[in-house]
Amino acid sequence: MTVSFDTAADLAPRILAGERRALARAITLVESGRADHRAQATALLDRLGTEKKALRIGLSGTPGVGKSTFIESFGMMLVGLGLRVAVLAVDPSSARSGGSILGDKTRMERLSREPAAFIRPSPSQAQLGGVARRTREAVALCEAAGFDVVLIETVGVGQSETLVAEMTDLFILLMAPAGGDELQGVKRGIMEMADMILVNKADGDLKPAALRTVSDYAGALRLLRRRPQDPEGFPKAVPVSALAEEGLKLAWEDMQSLAAWRRDKGHFDRRRAEQARHWFETEVREGLLARLTQDPAIRARMQALGTAVAEGQAAPAAAAAEMLAELQR
Amino acid sequence: MTVSFDTAADLAPRILAGERRALARAITLVESGRADHRAQATALLDRLGTEKKALRIGLSGTPGVGKSTFIESFGMMLVGLGLRVAVLAVDPSSARSGGSILGDKTRMERLSREPAAFIRPSPSQAQLGGVARRTREAVALCEAAGFDVVLIETVGVGQSETLVAEMTDLFILLMAPAGGDELQGVKRGIMEMADMILVNKADGDLKPAALRTVSDYAGALRLLRRRPQDPEGFPKAVPVSALAEEGLKLAWEDMQSLAAWRRDKGHFDRRRAEQARHWFETEVREGLLARLTQDPAIRARMQALGTAVAEGQAAPAAAAAEMLAELQR
Repeated sequence: MTVSFDTAADLAPRILAGERRALARAITLVESGRADHRAQATALLDRLGTEKKALRIGLSGTPGVGKSTFIESFGMMLVGLGLRVAVLAVDPSSARSGGSILGDKTRMERLSREPAAFIRPSPSQAQLGGVARRTREAVALCEAAGFDVVLIETVGVGQSETLVAEMTDLFILLMAPAGGDELQGVKRGIMEMADMILVNKADGDLKPAALRTVSDYAGALRLLRRRPQDPEGFPKAVPVSALAEEGLKLAWEDMQSLAAWRRDKGHFDRRRAEQARHWFETEVREGLLARLTQDPAIRARMQALGTAVAEGQAAPAAAAAEMLAELQR
Repeated sequence: MTVSFDTAADLAPRILAGERRALARAITLVESGRADHRAQATALLDRLGTEKKALRIGLSGTPGVGKSTFIESFGMMLVGLGLRVAVLAVDPSSARSGGSILGDKTRMERLSREPAAFIRPSPSQAQLGGVARRTREAVALCEAAGFDVVLIETVGVGQSETLVAEMTDLFILLMAPAGGDELQGVKRGIMEMADMILVNKADGDLKPAALRTVSDYAGALRLLRRRPQDPEGFPKAVPVSALAEEGLKLAWEDMQSLAAWRRDKGHFDRRRAEQARHWFETEVREGLLARLTQDPAIRARMQALGTAVAEGQAAPAAAAAEMLAELQR
């Protein structure tokens, strides 16, 4: 049995019409490692163009801060405002567990039933580089499908925050109320990427702790150097309750006013342009290096020359020059 | 006026005869960025072969631990044993200050006057990758010139330790006596690379502190997982005094017995083989990527496509595919 993939020509108009099923199939296409699928994916992305623009929001938070509940409540609020919302997950760790593949839709049960929402679980892909490409391309597909907001969730492991920050317009940290006055060991680098810190669980018994945590983070954010892309008062820390659905509208208004200010000042488009150029350059570099491992003849030659070098029969630089000359031919 | 560089054919026999002046000129050749010099350098390295083998020792220590005095005393001791000693420096920071260019020979005054010694200051090269290549190639040149020991010194900034550890047979950390019982914030990763920790300044008033520090480090080293390439008792911490010239012979005996054990068990040759293969693969990857920036036509095309992508006229993946197809032609 062969699984037949749709072609770029079939999928493009259906995606542009906002058909979720076509979008899902297109994302499967960009996730595929097969060379013919890659060619179709590239053709599809080229055909869809870059006209439509969603607000791309990166959301990071360690397990336990209530990220699923937040996305569900925040997503439902956006849908209630008449917006179409796509949720993508970047989870390099899921390669091992395969965990979130089944989990994503059940943990956002209400949102997954909304016709205006689209939830895509993270694929089980081992390599962070691969995750970056498929997510960037999935974002482009969601935009073409006319979604107003694309939420890209990361579990906050290793480099995944940087990766998500590099492909989004706003980067949001979701935190839990801290015990006492200590901050939760947020790495300075991640703090510096944040446009907003949302302290979740500002409800019931935890509310006082949440408010204290908000003021701690607000203090920490004030100590950071002011970035040119920030208006007065940003980055900011605010309390939310995903469970009680409180503070979500205010947080959304903050995100909108920040995005509007950046659009007005040119920061928004400049950042998009830099991100697109960076994506292009990365793809070229990775494509060049991929030749060394993907082409069986080249791979065998690398192996043979490497062994000759390891055994002292050839100098590393001379063997490398020979290999490079062969690649040029 | 043009500076004429020697050719590989001229230099090779002179280097193999151990002529220091030819060695110095050859290192200048491998440091050059010019394409014709690179071709000569590659030809030279190939011609010299990999027959002769020095013991390559990496030495890391932050400023203030007495590294120059140690290299001077340790080098003089080796020369006194009838050995030929080359000293190379890896100092990515010197790109800015240009500092060590004048400094190296004056700070090792006695050693620099020894006919059996060769001291090469670090060049002012900005990029760590470039430093890696020129140092690996300089080591190969020193070996071909018949040096028995090649000492590669690093200031312990950023990634330079890893770089040096990847091109040496033994990696030595030089430390100062610590005040009280606290260790000097050695990063665990660097500790794990060390084959020996030498605590310098074990003389005069500092001797008790130095001995305490040795036992602290010895304790810390015991907590690390045993590596297959280590015999019983290694990695070890020992006291030395570069100033009083004490402990240097014992440290050298330890280095020799460690190297002998590794030779005997096959670890030595295996590590060399892996390093050579790694060097070859790195050269191929860097050579491939260098095409994107060195060839003016390709650079201009990258720039133009990147701008088209940044301005939304082309999708990143499609532009990358186009660029890669052009590179294949």
